[in-house]
Amino acid sequence: MQSRHVSGEGMQSRNLSGAGDPGGPGRGPKHLLSIAELGRSGIEEILELTDRFVEINSRPIPKVPALRGKTVASVFFESSTRTRLSFETAARRLSADVMTFSASSSSLTKGESLRDTVETIEAMGVHAMVVRHRGSGVPWQVARWARHASVVNGGDGRHEHPTQALLDAYTITSVRGTPLDGLSIGIVGDISHSRVARSDVLAFSALGAQVTLVAPPTLLPPSLVGWPVAVSHDLDAVLPDLDVVYLLRLQQERMDDALLPSLREYTATYGLTTRRSRLLGAGAMIMHPGPVNRGVEVAADVIDLPSSVVTQQVANGVAVRMAVLYLLLGSGVDRVG
Amino acid sequence: MQSRHVSGEGMQSRNLSGAGDPGGPGRGPKHLLSIAELGRSGIEEILELTDRFVEINSRPIPKVPALRGKTVASVFFESSTRTRLSFETAARRLSADVMTFSASSSSLTKGESLRDTVETIEAMGVHAMVVRHRGSGVPWQVARWARHASVVNGGDGRHEHPTQALLDAYTITSVRGTPLDGLSIGIVGDISHSRVARSDVLAFSALGAQVTLVAPPTLLPPSLVGWPVAVSHDLDAVLPDLDVVYLLRLQQERMDDALLPSLREYTATYGLTTRRSRLLGAGAMIMHPGPVNRGVEVAADVIDLPSSVVTQQVANGVAVRMAVLYLLLGSGVDRVG
Amino acid sequence: MQSRHVSGEGMQSRNLSGAGDPGGPGRGPKHLLSIAELGRSGIEEILELTDRFVEINSRPIPKVPALRGKTVASVFFESSTRTRLSFETAARRLSADVMTFSASSSSLTKGESLRDTVETIEAMGVHAMVVRHRGSGVPWQVARWARHASVVNGGDGRHEHPTQALLDAYTITSVRGTPLDGLSIGIVGDISHSRVARSDVLAFSALGAQVTLVAPPTLLPPSLVGWPVAVSHDLDAVLPDLDVVYLLRLQQERMDDALLPSLREYTATYGLTTRRSRLLGAGAMIMHPGPVNRGVEVAADVIDLPSSVVTQQVANGVAVRMAVLYLLLGSGVDRVG
Repeated sequence: MQSRHVSGEGMQSRNLSGAGDPGGPGRGPKHLLSIAELGRSGIEEILELTDRFVEINSRPIPKVPALRGKTVASVFFESSTRTRLSFETAARRLSADVMTFSASSSSLTKGESLRDTVETIEAMGVHAMVVRHRGSGVPWQVARWARHASVVNGGDGRHEHPTQALLDAYTITSVRGTPLDGLSIGIVGDISHSRVARSDVLAFSALGAQVTLVAPPTLLPPSLVGWPVAVSHDLDAVLPDLDVVYLLRLQQERMDDALLPSLREYTATYGLTTRRSRLLGAGAMIMHPGPVNRGVEVAADVIDLPSSVVTQQVANGVAVRMAVLYLLLGSGVDRVG
Repeated sequence: MQSRHVSGEGMQSRNLSGAGDPGGPGRGPKHLLSIAELGRSGIEEILELTDRFVEINSRPIPKVPALRGKTVASVFFESSTRTRLSFETAARRLSADVMTFSASSSSLTKGESLRDTVETIEAMGVHAMVVRHRGSGVPWQVARWARHASVVNGGDGRHEHPTQALLDAYTITSVRGTPLDGLSIGIVGDISHSRVARSDVLAFSALGAQVTLVAPPTLLPPSLVGWPVAVSHDLDAVLPDLDVVYLLRLQQERMDDALLPSLREYTATYGLTTRRSRLLGAGAMIMHPGPVNRGVEVAADVIDLPSSVVTQQVANGVAVRMAVLYLLLGSGVDRVG
Repeated sequence: MQSRHVSGEGMQSRNLSGAGDPGGPGRGPKHLLSIAELGRSGIEEILELTDRFVEINSRPIPKVPALRGKTVASVFFESSTRTRLSFETAARRLSADVMTFSASSSSLTKGESLRDTVETIEAMGVHAMVVRHRGSGVPWQVARWARHASVVNGGDGRHEHPTQALLDAYTITSVRGTPLDGLSIGIVGDISHSRVARSDVLAFSALGAQVTLVAPPTLLPPSLVGWPVAVSHDLDAVLPDLDVVYLLRLQQERMDDALLPSLREYTATYGLTTRRSRLLGAGAMIMHPGPVNRGVEVAADVIDLPSSVVTQQVANGVAVRMAVLYLLLGSGVDRVG
């Protein structure tokens, strides 16, 4: 836990992520688009600042004036109550104003409409846009269109969900009290369709953890060339050596896609059942990005074990997003709190 | 009208409602779940504090810093614009931040999902959750799951709607300038499906009023054993003796349920028509929880009479909810205003 | 740019618009219902004050405490994300609280319901209601019902959209650096269904501009008696003499109405194509109320030209609405900033 005041001054001189802006230091708005572009030091800077906001959130009045007068827009083209509320709570705790824009993708099928929508929202004087879209890469496109506003990737297609990976990494280090270096982390489930899995792999690896993907072949990406991971199809064999087992949400539509024979078979083979949870070592953590399908990827009584840190993930998510918004929009003058 | 500053300190030491938390005084969050659990002194405490907030709401700047930095979530599994906006306005006037969560019950059919939803919202750092659900008892369940947050029942099934009863009781006393003791109050209409009726009966009776239910047998609960009420099927006979006639909203689906022969017959027998309104004594009040079906349970020109206090009910609703949120979340340090 | 502090004091003594309130100066709430009722001096007063808010919006902390504790409700019976967000952003920048009410017109077909809805919202303590409704004249009706709250017309049927005209007029004067007197402005497209066209004609004319409507006969109102405009069916002939070409959004349903043979023919005859844009004189401005149908009423590369001021229109919209809300609700005590 840091006791110094974080001024954000050091971050003012560069983009958290370039986003097609080849300008020099201090040029153009800063963005947070991907774990890939953030790198180890970028991740660590955010995690360190998160400590401060966790402390602030524990106060009787968990609110600081850091972003007073700034407007943060959630620009969600895909519905997601939980991520949106987390970002909006983070913004309000920094005293920013919140603008909620939501649209079904269907009403915005043309690229022009998307651009006009984004430019209109920005022109109203928005300082940051948290963008979620089913199209991979859309936040980068938005960042190129933006003139003044910072862009945060709130999840793009099957590509990245960087703040989820940041809150996951933060949760691991804060619960264990150690960095991720050398930890063994298993990510279990539908890897191929998961932006959470992709961002987590990148973040956990960058921080020095060993990642093992555990999934049926149909739920793995066609190629894993370049992914810094091991792969297994045998959860029972992997579990005893894991420090963290990270269960992905199984989406029902995978049955329809014929990628899975049945829910019951999936649970039998890749679900963290009660029996299987006993294979985990002492101190091993159970994680899930939510919402949980109790009885499918994890048994109801397992997700409620003390070693399950799902609630801490949610709580830390607000603090991580406060850190991100502060780094992007903080004036360098206001103290955090 | 109280002139002393209300510190809320006295309420800090006990639950407004136990909600399955058998802990001693001061243990766990406080909840407001039902009139039944509140009792006469609990009701009176809230009504007394409401006076202060009515006065605050009459100021040019009707806002106090009492709950600055607190977050109040409306967690509505059943749509209700009017109750939700009333609670959210109350929260903002106390300088709390507001989180709006709404979901159709259909997407949350499993108990597990409901629990995960509630735990996720709480984990984001919410200090109070106003819960509305079509299932009777759900707010109690939510209160058992909650670790830190206070729960307010915003209407559960056909069971209770405590803040509606509080605002109704407050409106009667403030318009008449007297307590409810000895008043004669008729509640007219669909008693059996109405959580408003149930909470009103409990509150009005606790405060010493005599309540008469006026309804066709099909719209009365199967048993009234234990209800401190008289029953009548003859509105004309009852009206002259009433100090307050409280009309419930008639929901169209009661025709489909075959509980009523026709709207026209209902209006003829149980509607407060213009003719019937003349049977009321001088000073008798007309009340309705809204939204009004003009021409059905009450004639259009009757609901607009000076003796109709529907608008005052709405205005007092904000003040009552400010009092409730203040009692649940107030620090005991901030003064009300 | 004004440097004096605007206190709003001078406006306190009369209604911006009478709205059926025949009371003397200073009686009842003030409303902004139409350009027609505002008149030249009313328009100029708002545009002058807008200068101050444009300056405020350019600050690092674009927020002033002028309306702290006031509540502004958007009461939208017709969906419109962009106008609603603009008003809500304006309200928040004045430190007002925002209440969002939205309803499909379908659920409120009876006049009684509309009235009850409005009276309920007002009774919660709302200080201003921004009303949008597909029915022409509804904001006047709401203003008659309102006891304390100011009403702003956010667009009523095919009738008026006064704040759009105000932001359009402001944009023209601020981009050109001159008043509108003597300017030649062409409004192109679906005049007959457009409240924007109607309000713009009234505002531009009142400020001394010459307005030419350019449209096929099927998209002109049946009668233009009393409209201070010229009419043309030949865009090519008109363009060289225009200082401003204002393109209206073409709504797809006009095809279904059989008012247009085809989109392609419309674009060929009345669209601002790339070729046609070269007919515009140096310094001529291209305007559009948004959202733009790229490739229909305007070519995609034309709307992105430097002479297109669509983004400035959106930005100025927030400042104009801040000016309007400030004039309606400002206490005359708080300084603007």
